Amino acid sequence: MYLFNSDYMEGAHPLILKALADTNFTQTPGYGTDAFCKDAADKILAACGSPDSFVHFLVGGTQANMTVISAFLRPWEGVISADTGHINVHETGAVESTGHKVLALPGKNGKLSAAQIEAYAKAHMADSDREHTVKPAMVYLSQSTELGTLYSLAELTDISNVCRNYGLLLFVDGARLAYALACGQNDVKLCDLARLTDAFYIGGTKCGALFGEAVVISSPELSRHFRYMIKQKGGMLAKGRLLGIQFGTLFSDGLYEKVGAHGIRLADRIRVALKENGYRLFAESPTNQLFPIFSSRQLEALSREFSFTLWQQFEDGAAVRICTSWATEEAAVDRLINMLKDLKQA
Amino acid sequence: MYLFNSDYMEGAHPLILKALADTNFTQTPGYGTDAFCKDAADKILAACGSPDSFVHFLVGGTQANMTVISAFLRPWEGVISADTGHINVHETGAVESTGHKVLALPGKNGKLSAAQIEAYAKAHMADSDREHTVKPAMVYLSQSTELGTLYSLAELTDISNVCRNYGLLLFVDGARLAYALACGQNDVKLCDLARLTDAFYIGGTKCGALFGEAVVISSPELSRHFRYMIKQKGGMLAKGRLLGIQFGTLFSDGLYEKVGAHGIRLADRIRVALKENGYRLFAESPTNQLFPIFSSRQLEALSREFSFTLWQQFEDGAAVRICTSWATEEAAVDRLINMLKDLKQA
Amino acid sequence: MYLFNSDYMEGAHPLILKALADTNFTQTPGYGTDAFCKDAADKILAACGSPDSFVHFLVGGTQANMTVISAFLRPWEGVISADTGHINVHETGAVESTGHKVLALPGKNGKLSAAQIEAYAKAHMADSDREHTVKPAMVYLSQSTELGTLYSLAELTDISNVCRNYGLLLFVDGARLAYALACGQNDVKLCDLARLTDAFYIGGTKCGALFGEAVVISSPELSRHFRYMIKQKGGMLAKGRLLGIQFGTLFSDGLYEKVGAHGIRLADRIRVALKENGYRLFAESPTNQLFPIFSSRQLEALSREFSFTLWQQFEDGAAVRICTSWATEEAAVDRLINMLKDLKQA
Amino acid sequence: MYLFNSDYMEGAHPLILKALADTNFTQTPGYGTDAFCKDAADKILAACGSPDSFVHFLVGGTQANMTVISAFLRPWEGVISADTGHINVHETGAVESTGHKVLALPGKNGKLSAAQIEAYAKAHMADSDREHTVKPAMVYLSQSTELGTLYSLAELTDISNVCRNYGLLLFVDGARLAYALACGQNDVKLCDLARLTDAFYIGGTKCGALFGEAVVISSPELSRHFRYMIKQKGGMLAKGRLLGIQFGTLFSDGLYEKVGAHGIRLADRIRVALKENGYRLFAESPTNQLFPIFSSRQLEALSREFSFTLWQQFEDGAAVRICTSWATEEAAVDRLINMLKDLKQA
Repeated sequence: MYLFNSDYMEGAHPLILKALADTNFTQTPGYGTDAFCKDAADKILAACGSPDSFVHFLVGGTQANMTVISAFLRPWEGVISADTGHINVHETGAVESTGHKVLALPGKNGKLSAAQIEAYAKAHMADSDREHTVKPAMVYLSQSTELGTLYSLAELTDISNVCRNYGLLLFVDGARLAYALACGQNDVKLCDLARLTDAFYIGGTKCGALFGEAVVISSPELSRHFRYMIKQKGGMLAKGRLLGIQFGTLFSDGLYEKVGAHGIRLADRIRVALKENGYRLFAESPTNQLFPIFSSRQLEALSREFSFTLWQQFEDGAAVRICTSWATEEAAVDRLINMLKDLKQA
Repeated sequence: MYLFNSDYMEGAHPLILKALADTNFTQTPGYGTDAFCKDAADKILAACGSPDSFVHFLVGGTQANMTVISAFLRPWEGVISADTGHINVHETGAVESTGHKVLALPGKNGKLSAAQIEAYAKAHMADSDREHTVKPAMVYLSQSTELGTLYSLAELTDISNVCRNYGLLLFVDGARLAYALACGQNDVKLCDLARLTDAFYIGGTKCGALFGEAVVISSPELSRHFRYMIKQKGGMLAKGRLLGIQFGTLFSDGLYEKVGAHGIRLADRIRVALKENGYRLFAESPTNQLFPIFSSRQLEALSREFSFTLWQQFEDGAAVRICTSWATEEAAVDRLINMLKDLKQA
Repeated sequence: MYLFNSDYMEGAHPLILKALADTNFTQTPGYGTDAFCKDAADKILAACGSPDSFVHFLVGGTQANMTVISAFLRPWEGVISADTGHINVHETGAVESTGHKVLALPGKNGKLSAAQIEAYAKAHMADSDREHTVKPAMVYLSQSTELGTLYSLAELTDISNVCRNYGLLLFVDGARLAYALACGQNDVKLCDLARLTDAFYIGGTKCGALFGEAVVISSPELSRHFRYMIKQKGGMLAKGRLLGIQFGTLFSDGLYEKVGAHGIRLADRIRVALKENGYRLFAESPTNQLFPIFSSRQLEALSREFSFTLWQQFEDGAAVRICTSWATEEAAVDRLINMLKDLKQA
Repeated sequence: MYLFNSDYMEGAHPLILKALADTNFTQTPGYGTDAFCKDAADKILAACGSPDSFVHFLVGGTQANMTVISAFLRPWEGVISADTGHINVHETGAVESTGHKVLALPGKNGKLSAAQIEAYAKAHMADSDREHTVKPAMVYLSQSTELGTLYSLAELTDISNVCRNYGLLLFVDGARLAYALACGQNDVKLCDLARLTDAFYIGGTKCGALFGEAVVISSPELSRHFRYMIKQKGGMLAKGRLLGIQFGTLFSDGLYEKVGAHGIRLADRIRVALKENGYRLFAESPTNQLFPIFSSRQLEALSREFSFTLWQQFEDGAAVRICTSWATEEAAVDRLINMLKDLKQA
């Protein structure tokens, strides 16, 4: 049985395990004040071409989203998200638990548009009773999105401009950023994210690390007290070095690119096979998440050898998510493709 | 320079690193639903002699404290803690950030007494305006405490009885539990904690793991929805297996006991040296934290080779904390003891 | 200029002012522990035919909603509301500020259906990853709704049954309950609300009082610590007597019924005039809120003498809200109706 | 039986009731946007000699404290208070319920000193691990304090200077401000409060109004979004006019001064009688709260005719609080003084 359910089914890239072992008895101060973290932050900022930004390491995605959003917003402010956004549906109300409403707007393929955000912000300002509603103060996007889609550089630039015009902060969830960066269709680079957002994060958990997300914050004002917030929200790892060592490794010798490229190459192989064999897709996605629709018969056969995430049940069959990653085995992909050929509709 | 500042200056016990490497490409489902977590939980419950309890793995101590306390309390309820308790002083208000007041009572050597807790609970019930004050609903202890002291079985039993009589939940922070269990003076076993508390946790971060705390909850009612809470508070690791693998290793072949024993044996050597050479102690502690008072001259000399945590500054000198752990090197302890001899008061 | 904007444009029913003046120098204990509150609570419970329920007085509607919802829910739980529900749109995220997500479902004429609630609860229970989403634990309805519509007794009974089957609490916002009760179409009585809900409130602010909402809670368990919560959320009036005196007056000699009947009678007159003169309605409502659509020309003319609440702007004209109340002057309604006749479409 | 328990045992000053009755049918917009509120705010700012400040009306003291503190602080920040401060002991953890720790320092006669605040702020800044502790960001004082004592102008100026030097906001709770202002010993005027604090409030509830506190905020930045916060925290009265009318009356024709003067004159009579007849005081207070210690015999006799608030129980007797107010009857004071004479220690 091979698990294609998600991109966190295995441990870590072997180079990361090796780095952890090599440094195991090196003593360091705690809580991310060590030299490994400093080195990793420097490498990340160099990769972002943004030497004046600030890097903070967190353990996981929900934690990063909750901590950034509640650190940046005032109590009466809310965050705009696509209705399919991770913070709106899959974080057990973590953002609300910090007191902030997620202002969910209908997404298109998991994405928001600049026009949509502008209209919402404008309507709030025009409302004479606006104090009775939550003030929109931040926009949350994911790159890639929960449906595997991408914002183009033009789209991200437009959204960034609207945010600056309307006093909204822009925050990008990059839990799967390695796969977005490695995707052929993508034209948004790390330096664009650093330039166009107030904060974004570089996912480690799903991109080769055991765990960890590197939050990049643009302004000193937003970064200044962020460590208090990490501590308060339970995200300050005593052995913060673990994050420094992992991200230092990911940002050495192009490992983060390699990790993304492997996942995308195998996803592309499956994507081609799905199309060539006439499978319908629930969502068009160019990255490492694929959403084919299988008939009950097909699903039953596939499920003898593979596990997927059920995405939506239909009367005859279901849409599932197939995920590749840095760890996906070529041989498993071969087997899957062969079976997809065998099972194609007559 | 050797760091005696705390018990989280290195990585993990080599057996833990090995277990992580050995299982690295084994695929598992995420979020702690894997077989490694199941196995580790079973081992922990067996060690606690408490097969009907429930184990939940969290990443760190502040996170564990905040998640347990806010999961168990209702909004109008607060948690009683010694004024020196970790939740009261060193968690950046994490408990308050979830809406609950820490009801700090003056500790004695970092400890609360059953009588003190009873008096507080009684006074609240007797107050006709009690609705204007926070309702005490939980007691938070640490074993060992922030000053390295221990609750005896008799003390813990008394406190547990008071808690049950007054409807207070009892929660024990065991971030340094390995060292408490290994201490010669200690008579509180894992099974006592499981029996006398509503929840406690078994520290991994400071006791040989890379990170991780295993929360043991007695009642199905308190455990039932706890995973929602872990997720909401940002503590649900995608690769939850990492916690299962680590705790499975710690609870195999007596590793958790060995880890504690090593730290205590070296602490005992330093403790004896401090006493034999006439050093005063800021606090009497039988576990792996020592609080000697050094003169400025002594501190200056020691600081050329060792690093400690500054505990309290005095006019001439300071109290510092010396911490040993599973990772402390015998040779470093030899060097420290030699220097302590050399520097003793004439 | 006559204000039809809402039902809180004036002070209080003269009998209430008189009662406040008559009792002004009577000394009472504070915080709602006085005899006036006791008397009012008894009268309300008698009116509800529910002697074993509990009454708590709060100052306003947002406060009542926020206090009840956050008192009843656990941190990982959310409240289901129609998307147009007051808690979802017009309370500046008060519910979220207490940590809870409002689970907004698309309403029909401002109403939820039992089927819709059941489907949502069922889907949550069936989701194997349900711990990653907010647990639905309460249903919030308004009677009458924000669009002036009513739940029938059959609809409310169905919803109550679904709630009981799925472990959801049922809470009804009765800010405008006097007008719902007085409406010809209504078949839901106070005793039905007491019987079918876990809590509901009887609005005072919009129904003849200066301010105040009387929350009726069914179960002793939910009521037991509610006063702690009122105090903590800032809703415990020092001179709680003011609420007792007002609600005691409203529930004497049928005043609450008279207040509702006056508002409904005048709303009915306007409703008939709107229909007879061919005006379109944005929403069909049988209670004291009317939502006619006026052309720009009509609106301009009407606005010289009357003020309404803008509901939705259209290219030529707008939907507005006309509200009547216990205080609405017959003469103002006469003038409005005459102008509606004059302005009708040729 | 005459109640001396507190200063909220009666309704409102008759001029306030009259003003409410006189304006009862005047229509106004809601939520404090009416002309009565505008007029009252203007009068208050004139009385404060602070035309550029901002006035916001809230219903009660706990609500005002919670709303101001949570509006001004960031999540990782806490508020310094005397341990006897109302927010620390008598608000059911309202401040903590908004996520902020109350940093309680030992008060002297209910007061903090500038030196104490400075030492605390300095220690925080000097702590290299300060991110592990709550950042002090505001100082909360009461004038008069919970023990009836007063800050002198010199003391308040010193505290204000420390606050500005250390980046702490200064907030003064004036629930009993009328009695502080009217006290012979007092040298702090309204204009001093406006000048030296970032926000303070002028108590109405205990000073002649039915309810209401007028918050005066110095800076436009702190005031800008405060109405969102009032609404979110449940403090925005639909009929906000009620607050405008009451404060407009209190700040016309010197009524606020008269209210305070009456309470103080009668308190002074009792104070003199207590001293002349040899009663001991639990706390020395120059304002409208008196804290005599009575023997059991005295208390029993007094309690046949008068009710007090029990402050602290002793073996033989108790300290009680006697409170006067705008409403206290001269005849009741006469009777009390006579009995105090009769009961004096032989």
